[in-house]
Amino acid sequence: MRTLFLAIFTICTAIAASSGEIASPDGNFRLSINTNTEGEPYYSLSYKGTPVIVDSRLGLQSPEANFDKGFRIIGTDTCHIDRTWTPVWGEYAEIRDNFNEMLVKFGSMTSGLEMDIRFRLFNDGLGFRYELPVQDKANYLTLKKELTEFNFTGDHTLYCIPGDYDTDEFLFSEVPFSGTSEALARYKGVHSESESIRETAVQTPLLLKTADKTPLYISLHEAGLIGYPGMSLTVDSDKRSLSALLTPDRLGNSAYLQLPVLTPWRTLIVSDDARDILASQMILNLNEPCSYEDTSWIKPMKFVGVWWEMFVTDATWSYSDDFRAKPGVTDYSKIKPNGHHAANTANVKRYIDFAAKNGIQGVLVEGWNEGWEDWASFKKNRQFLFDKPYPDFDIKELQKYAADKGVQIIMHHETAANAADYERNLDKAFSYMKDNGYNAVKTGYVGTVIPRSEHHTSQWMVEHVRHVIEKAADYRIMVDSHEAPKPTGLCRTYPNWLAQESARGGEFEAFGGNPPSHTCILPFTRLKGGPMDYTPGIFEIHYWNRENGKKSQAFTTLARQLALYLTMPSPIQMACDFPETYERFDDAFQFIRDVPVDWADTRYLEAEPNRYITVARLDKNSSDWYIGAITDDKERTALIDFSFLPKGVKYVATIYEDAPDAHFMTNPQAYRIRTINVNSKTKIKQRLAPGGGTAIRIAPAQIANK
Amino acid sequence: MRTLFLAIFTICTAIAASSGEIASPDGNFRLSINTNTEGEPYYSLSYKGTPVIVDSRLGLQSPEANFDKGFRIIGTDTCHIDRTWTPVWGEYAEIRDNFNEMLVKFGSMTSGLEMDIRFRLFNDGLGFRYELPVQDKANYLTLKKELTEFNFTGDHTLYCIPGDYDTDEFLFSEVPFSGTSEALARYKGVHSESESIRETAVQTPLLLKTADKTPLYISLHEAGLIGYPGMSLTVDSDKRSLSALLTPDRLGNSAYLQLPVLTPWRTLIVSDDARDILASQMILNLNEPCSYEDTSWIKPMKFVGVWWEMFVTDATWSYSDDFRAKPGVTDYSKIKPNGHHAANTANVKRYIDFAAKNGIQGVLVEGWNEGWEDWASFKKNRQFLFDKPYPDFDIKELQKYAADKGVQIIMHHETAANAADYERNLDKAFSYMKDNGYNAVKTGYVGTVIPRSEHHTSQWMVEHVRHVIEKAADYRIMVDSHEAPKPTGLCRTYPNWLAQESARGGEFEAFGGNPPSHTCILPFTRLKGGPMDYTPGIFEIHYWNRENGKKSQAFTTLARQLALYLTMPSPIQMACDFPETYERFDDAFQFIRDVPVDWADTRYLEAEPNRYITVARLDKNSSDWYIGAITDDKERTALIDFSFLPKGVKYVATIYEDAPDAHFMTNPQAYRIRTINVNSKTKIKQRLAPGGGTAIRIAPAQIANK
Repeated sequence: MRTLFLAIFTICTAIAASSGEIASPDGNFRLSINTNTEGEPYYSLSYKGTPVIVDSRLGLQSPEANFDKGFRIIGTDTCHIDRTWTPVWGEYAEIRDNFNEMLVKFGSMTSGLEMDIRFRLFNDGLGFRYELPVQDKANYLTLKKELTEFNFTGDHTLYCIPGDYDTDEFLFSEVPFSGTSEALARYKGVHSESESIRETAVQTPLLLKTADKTPLYISLHEAGLIGYPGMSLTVDSDKRSLSALLTPDRLGNSAYLQLPVLTPWRTLIVSDDARDILASQMILNLNEPCSYEDTSWIKPMKFVGVWWEMFVTDATWSYSDDFRAKPGVTDYSKIKPNGHHAANTANVKRYIDFAAKNGIQGVLVEGWNEGWEDWASFKKNRQFLFDKPYPDFDIKELQKYAADKGVQIIMHHETAANAADYERNLDKAFSYMKDNGYNAVKTGYVGTVIPRSEHHTSQWMVEHVRHVIEKAADYRIMVDSHEAPKPTGLCRTYPNWLAQESARGGEFEAFGGNPPSHTCILPFTRLKGGPMDYTPGIFEIHYWNRENGKKSQAFTTLARQLALYLTMPSPIQMACDFPETYERFDDAFQFIRDVPVDWADTRYLEAEPNRYITVARLDKNSSDWYIGAITDDKERTALIDFSFLPKGVKYVATIYEDAPDAHFMTNPQAYRIRTINVNSKTKIKQRLAPGGGTAIRIAPAQIANK
Repeated sequence: MRTLFLAIFTICTAIAASSGEIASPDGNFRLSINTNTEGEPYYSLSYKGTPVIVDSRLGLQSPEANFDKGFRIIGTDTCHIDRTWTPVWGEYAEIRDNFNEMLVKFGSMTSGLEMDIRFRLFNDGLGFRYELPVQDKANYLTLKKELTEFNFTGDHTLYCIPGDYDTDEFLFSEVPFSGTSEALARYKGVHSESESIRETAVQTPLLLKTADKTPLYISLHEAGLIGYPGMSLTVDSDKRSLSALLTPDRLGNSAYLQLPVLTPWRTLIVSDDARDILASQMILNLNEPCSYEDTSWIKPMKFVGVWWEMFVTDATWSYSDDFRAKPGVTDYSKIKPNGHHAANTANVKRYIDFAAKNGIQGVLVEGWNEGWEDWASFKKNRQFLFDKPYPDFDIKELQKYAADKGVQIIMHHETAANAADYERNLDKAFSYMKDNGYNAVKTGYVGTVIPRSEHHTSQWMVEHVRHVIEKAADYRIMVDSHEAPKPTGLCRTYPNWLAQESARGGEFEAFGGNPPSHTCILPFTRLKGGPMDYTPGIFEIHYWNRENGKKSQAFTTLARQLALYLTMPSPIQMACDFPETYERFDDAFQFIRDVPVDWADTRYLEAEPNRYITVARLDKNSSDWYIGAITDDKERTALIDFSFLPKGVKYVATIYEDAPDAHFMTNPQAYRIRTINVNSKTKIKQRLAPGGGTAIRIAPAQIANK
């Protein structure tokens, strides 16, 4: 299926101008472009008359050619475009792409260099990118610096994680500009594969909130990250300013480019209503259309897996405890098994049985292949083999067993961040998958990157991951990538890229926990780039902490876990807990059985970053609506207005809620299930326990009563 | 065909010892191993009672574990092995592998570390390697330094090229230890892709000659370079000492190792007869046997090609002069051709016709594929496509045309040293070759390496090239690699690795020239690692120098070019000049038509490094012998003793020689062809012009007279 375009073009105009100005289609945004007396390009942006970005610099620097000053505006091309397209999967059945565009052409009288910057102003924000056309005075660039600034107007609050070239698995800080240095310094060295940025820096997607009486919410990110390094932002607390910092390789170069160059889009989503930030599809709109002719093989799904037990029991990824075992060298059939290897045939069958019984499409299996006996990323030139199962994992038998039950096994390719070796083996790995009936893979890049010149977010790695996605598409394989560069909406172009991790995920509930606010900020930040494989579904809140041997717990109520399937939308959603746990709470598990992973429509009903989210979604394949509502560590009453329902139709709502005495710390598993009749006029007050949540299925009355 | 072993093992003995000593099977070499009072391991070597290496240190250093001191010898295992094996191709039909071996076990009382060093003493020299067994106190090593020393006994003459991490395409210096600093400093910055080693350093294969009345010749190299960086040697002029210097990556680490570790062999071939250095097969003997079950697809061959014209005419690799063309992006069918692109269908057919007519098996075509419009290695993340011919190269038509004439086209894969991108496309590239009937590829790595952490000779690149060879074997493809790490005899293990460049080759005759001595030293140095694709066969000595637009010339006589087919043996030999040139000198070209590229036996008749070589070889597929004799820039009379011929058999020798007035500078194309009758008693004096040579075909009389 190709995406459909319904395009309405107004007449485009080209003029010679010394400055450029445009407004968004609804007139709320105004953008102006100028140069100063040194010929340095600047831009500024306002929303409903309020300045959002003031005089902020633009430009690129390389030893071969500096596109930074001496410029004047030699012309502008403006356009209005209004079109609608159909995503393969997502939060909406159709997405409107409606913007005014201005291409500003800069020329230097002295150097002869030319630089275009393309601005698109939507009703929800701004996207702009640098475009370096083919020209006589420049061909190759070794990019050292992008000069893009974002100068704000006050001591806004930042919802941010610290700048790091190699990981984004952090909790968020909520801190004003003036407090960033102190707040971000706390993170240094907390993550094993981290290489912190030395300056005070933050990552995108970043959320800011102004201190105004009617505050503005500002989401800052990038779209369409292709052939370019990831962008972080250095923070100037005094100037309330953020500046682009491109991840360099270990030689200190950020990008190797040949003209013509199109950079990724720099994006600002702005609104005085926090819900608009969540609803915005601007980043997808700025990405290129689907690059595949046929997408029939891309199928959203839920999955269970041999995974969570490696976090909360003594089960291991490794087959043996012999840390000297070498993949492809050691005869694994002859070394001593450790007796608690999870990815064994019998255990996988147990998950397949459970998935088949409950209509879950997939079973992820981690630790199925040679190489888990030690962890020596960077030091080891080959850590894993992608076509060598452990002796107790009978891949042929499991293929047949799963196929007979209509379940698919999801492959796991942990690379230990050895992207070089993964590329060397990629065709072999994907062929092996297809030979054994696999259609989806979870990839992992835990550790320090090989090639050793690279970071997780440097240009080469950005292209590596895209190469994997494209190669996977050649084999009709769907991908869920972990520890990869942050998503930037590329799932529109490559819809087999179902999800990424790229943030601190649910796994951290097993080591330290995620405070309830974490999932109240992720949708405002990380999720603006694309779906996250957050792995919700923890029903057994208390677990054995394998790190310290003590009883520990996740920071959530059980009902909240159900709400996450709505508030953390993804076309591939895990139910991470054990089959036997779900069997103990089968009435609550009914929600996971029911909940879709692909949507026809979405309505954000309530939202405040780090505090709460209430969202309603319409199943793409039925008339059922679903609602998810979560709060932070404080009790809350969600006000749910059902006016999104079609008028005059009767529905039955099944409400999965925290019990009155539930509390995420002291009584997390207390939940209640009740049904009420609702229609478009219904409004309810729904209590959420501290750290809790509510999940609701809303089915037309005649169906629900069957 | 697998190699055959005829092995005779004497009883092996293991003893506890505080020092170790062994002798070579013929008793000429004596080796002793010891530790000093700090427990540092040392070795020394003598030949016929004369010290060759005196007390030289051994050891390895890494931050994780230092194998350098505190050791004592805790035991030795000794063995005698005598066996014969059959190479797939080479200078001999069978090769004898006859040595005494001593495995010296070092143990540390303090650190608990264990290190073995395996020494093999042959009748032609010594090989030794480090072996780090699996042990409790060490697992991963980030190798910083190998301590191996070679301490010599006097101010020997070195025949050397300067230490460089990225290129070995230099002329040789003949210089005593005491003059090395000055001599090697002259080279700095003479080669575009060079990264000179800062210390005074030389590359291997290195030749040394003592100043004794009966001098010793000492060849120093390594064998079986796998999973380890290439070794250069730093020079201590005062101490007459060389020390191992392993190529580091750009992070400063030399190797990433996991125990067990076997390093490459460090090799010393020693004799008081220079001819023994040439004849030695010790480096092949130290390599592992052929790793392929079936080698029937590996076929030595001669080839012509679309190549030399790009050096000496205005013909280009590129199709267009538009330096902004981007492979895979630009539509090459729509850009303006430059009108002098050599790899066009008609021109390739001309070479195919010529090859077919003259029994030449292969036609190399360079510049057939997209990407030659500029040269931006390192700056460009994709320089070439390996499956996109230029519009004027009709690959399908040429496949059919060549096949109909019994000729094969040799693929060319220039990577611009972007090994990362080559790996990404390797399966696609080799599949494309097989789909189009190609069985051999010339690879190239001109430029600065990507991954950008690597050098041409760093560990990752060593493994990259081996990966390419193994992957090629999966496709039954033969490889001739240029700008790859120096050969170390791996062609025994991987006989599809027919040849390498890895030295200043014949192409330099087109820009600056190779003095005649160059090909008198290469067989003593570079060729000890394996065959070189030197590209002999220049008949039109004078050419148009495209660099300065002037008439220029190669430093050779025409007859010498024929002799190079014997003195520079390779299973893949080019006849590099133009078909029309060979047609002008058809009588001389008869020798190239006749000369084999695979040999049953070889006799080095005369040899002195940098001065002269005379060699006789027996065709593997007939009873014909061939002789090649070359001199340096001085006239010489070769004394050729035909006693290698079987007694009582009459032969006719066809002699291709310099005319009496020939001279490589003033009259290089003057040659003469004559025949004489010879038998095992014949001795002749054969004049070689300055810079000249002689090539002789010796066929049994009854056949020759037919």
